[in-house]
Amino acid sequence: MATNIENSLRGKSSEVIDAAARTEGCPPDFILQGLADGTIVVPANNTRKLRRPCAIGRGLSVKINANIGSSEDVDSIEDELEKLRAAVAFGSDTVMDLSTGARWRETLEQVLRNSPLPVGTVPLYEVFSKAVREGRAIPEVTEDEMFEAVEDHCRTGVDFLTLHCGVTRRAVELLKDQGRKLGIVSRGGSLLAEWMHGNQRENPLYEHFDRLVEILHRYDATFSLGDGLRPGCISDASDRAQIEELLTLGELQKRSLQAGVQVMIEGPGHVAMDRIAENVRMQKSVCNGAPFYVLGPIVTDVAPGYDDITSAIGGALAAWYGADFLCYVTPAEHLRLPDADDVRRGVVASRIAAHAADIARGHPGASDSDDQMAKARHDFDWDRQYELALDPARAREERGQSLPSDSDVCSMCSRLCAIKTSRRAIEDG
Amino acid sequence: MATNIENSLRGKSSEVIDAAARTEGCPPDFILQGLADGTIVVPANNTRKLRRPCAIGRGLSVKINANIGSSEDVDSIEDELEKLRAAVAFGSDTVMDLSTGARWRETLEQVLRNSPLPVGTVPLYEVFSKAVREGRAIPEVTEDEMFEAVEDHCRTGVDFLTLHCGVTRRAVELLKDQGRKLGIVSRGGSLLAEWMHGNQRENPLYEHFDRLVEILHRYDATFSLGDGLRPGCISDASDRAQIEELLTLGELQKRSLQAGVQVMIEGPGHVAMDRIAENVRMQKSVCNGAPFYVLGPIVTDVAPGYDDITSAIGGALAAWYGADFLCYVTPAEHLRLPDADDVRRGVVASRIAAHAADIARGHPGASDSDDQMAKARHDFDWDRQYELALDPARAREERGQSLPSDSDVCSMCSRLCAIKTSRRAIEDG
Repeated sequence: MATNIENSLRGKSSEVIDAAARTEGCPPDFILQGLADGTIVVPANNTRKLRRPCAIGRGLSVKINANIGSSEDVDSIEDELEKLRAAVAFGSDTVMDLSTGARWRETLEQVLRNSPLPVGTVPLYEVFSKAVREGRAIPEVTEDEMFEAVEDHCRTGVDFLTLHCGVTRRAVELLKDQGRKLGIVSRGGSLLAEWMHGNQRENPLYEHFDRLVEILHRYDATFSLGDGLRPGCISDASDRAQIEELLTLGELQKRSLQAGVQVMIEGPGHVAMDRIAENVRMQKSVCNGAPFYVLGPIVTDVAPGYDDITSAIGGALAAWYGADFLCYVTPAEHLRLPDADDVRRGVVASRIAAHAADIARGHPGASDSDDQMAKARHDFDWDRQYELALDPARAREERGQSLPSDSDVCSMCSRLCAIKTSRRAIEDG
Repeated sequence: MATNIENSLRGKSSEVIDAAARTEGCPPDFILQGLADGTIVVPANNTRKLRRPCAIGRGLSVKINANIGSSEDVDSIEDELEKLRAAVAFGSDTVMDLSTGARWRETLEQVLRNSPLPVGTVPLYEVFSKAVREGRAIPEVTEDEMFEAVEDHCRTGVDFLTLHCGVTRRAVELLKDQGRKLGIVSRGGSLLAEWMHGNQRENPLYEHFDRLVEILHRYDATFSLGDGLRPGCISDASDRAQIEELLTLGELQKRSLQAGVQVMIEGPGHVAMDRIAENVRMQKSVCNGAPFYVLGPIVTDVAPGYDDITSAIGGALAAWYGADFLCYVTPAEHLRLPDADDVRRGVVASRIAAHAADIARGHPGASDSDDQMAKARHDFDWDRQYELALDPARAREERGQSLPSDSDVCSMCSRLCAIKTSRRAIEDG
């Protein structure tokens, strides 16, 4: 079966692309062109009917992803479905199920069944967490187990897969040489590095990349080439290991695109504000304009409990500079597995970053809702303000906690409301 | 009595300046030089002994302010003292008491008595809110009442005073002409505009600026020249009225500095990311390098309930571009008077922005705490991580909500902790 890229080269659209174009408010041809030249992806596994597909990449509005998923210590399917509902309700464009608990399969199946949004996974978690549960050492995992997991996730219906194909021996050697403060902080990246170290072998996902391409091609699944060597603290940012990996990802992107399989590239991580531009521009340059999917970046390491904010700052900047897709970070990051309220906070923070970037990039229509909010504020139309808010329920609830005597205004200014005063001073003048 | 500026011109330091220099970790001479050329302020009223003075301006770390204060509808001294304690505990550098409730005087006296930090006010709130309580129209307030309020606040011990001296008739006319979406959103600015409109007179704070200079000189209080015409939505940003006001403030800054009275300049407000740089650079240029004190800026209007985040994005950018002093915005902004928990969230968000900017600006030692955090994460030293966190209690509490089976790690990754895996893969290798 032809993939969406292959069809796009013949100018042929599909239901999924048409739906993504409608959501985006752009002609399907624009997305077809982006698919063909590798600057846009529309993650959608061909074995399932995706209710709300989305297009990610050049010329489109910035999209966001919410990570959910169990861990060994917190393994409840109901909790994960609650997080999924929160991610959808508060406006995420995609979700990743990163479950590593023993019940990961049932969780993933339920997430796929209940998610209207594209779903991503990191399929190798499956094999490595199983090995840990069985008391096997990481290097004992076989290459076949890895590729079977990838096929398994595709067969189950996953739309995009994070695969750390760029964690090569050379990149890991560079990382060792330069003495990072925090080594490897990507779970997938570190597990592959341990496997490579234990077996003294090259990364199978790199060595047998064509085998991955074949699998993903069958399902028209999308590569999310993982940044396994991303910095885990601002001091480790933009080092040689990170850039070596990025160069490799750029090569693999080209091979995958030529084979008709969609690709996006993942990026850091922990990056100070003044180094975000270089990260985005370097990715665009060495990865041939492929969509850039960044985690955060968080701009300081000293705010555990508030990494929704540190990542909103970094994400807004990254997206302004050209990143296409922001992976949220929740307030629970670095501390514990997030719960549904963390998901809500993370999604809203990430949407703020994406929206602020759309405005700064001059994306058509991006500030329409801001202008409507200004009008609603001018008119003291509170219901409309709630409606336009990224989180209507929170806005309504916060104001309701302290209602003023004059129902027009709020309890901050009460009768000294500047908008009221301004009307008397300016508009009646 | 000579002011700190006058002393600085003779190379003479003071207890306050020495203390500010110690906090900053810079030689007092650096601050003296900045006072003399108007690029640094050290707000400290000469009638009271300030326990924790701070220096704000060029070459120094970015400072933050927390607004507290009652309103007509929420008027509790105990609540305000609780907010003051939160502002101090979570690391604000200054506080402003913006009380407009009937008990504003007692509130201010208590805030001054209990605050180790410099305290600012908007003295004209006193006269306008009194007029409203007495059922008088705003234009009935007399000029003498205004100047008496300024003297009154200085006498009470206020360290810095927001005075909207640049809301001139010409600027208000420009604002009317250009048809803003949200008119004037500054309380002080709008009330003065109403006064000017009702009396068909120039702004007394502009017309009799020298009278203000004389008053502030006696107490060595610091001008915070207010941006009464700041934009209230991103669509109103950087318009002619705003810039006209800024030009006026630049002139007044020069006059005040020549008279030996310290000045900083206030700035917006609601500004999209791509227009923040112009706002900062314009201020630095037309206000002779005077310290720039920005409110936010918030980068989108559609996130009521999350304006701690929208302003952290804008504040981080503004400070990176050169703003010196960030006024926090709390999640309650646009909805209600903040409470102590909002103050906590606002202060931490603003500190994140200031810290991220210090790092991006390459301020000496700015990333030391980040590096120490990276080490503590590497070492699984949780107590040290809490210690280094901007909000230690929150970090501890969040992790405590879901403790993992292995006390080293957190419940996000459990036994798949990347840092542990990385150690096996890299450090033992």
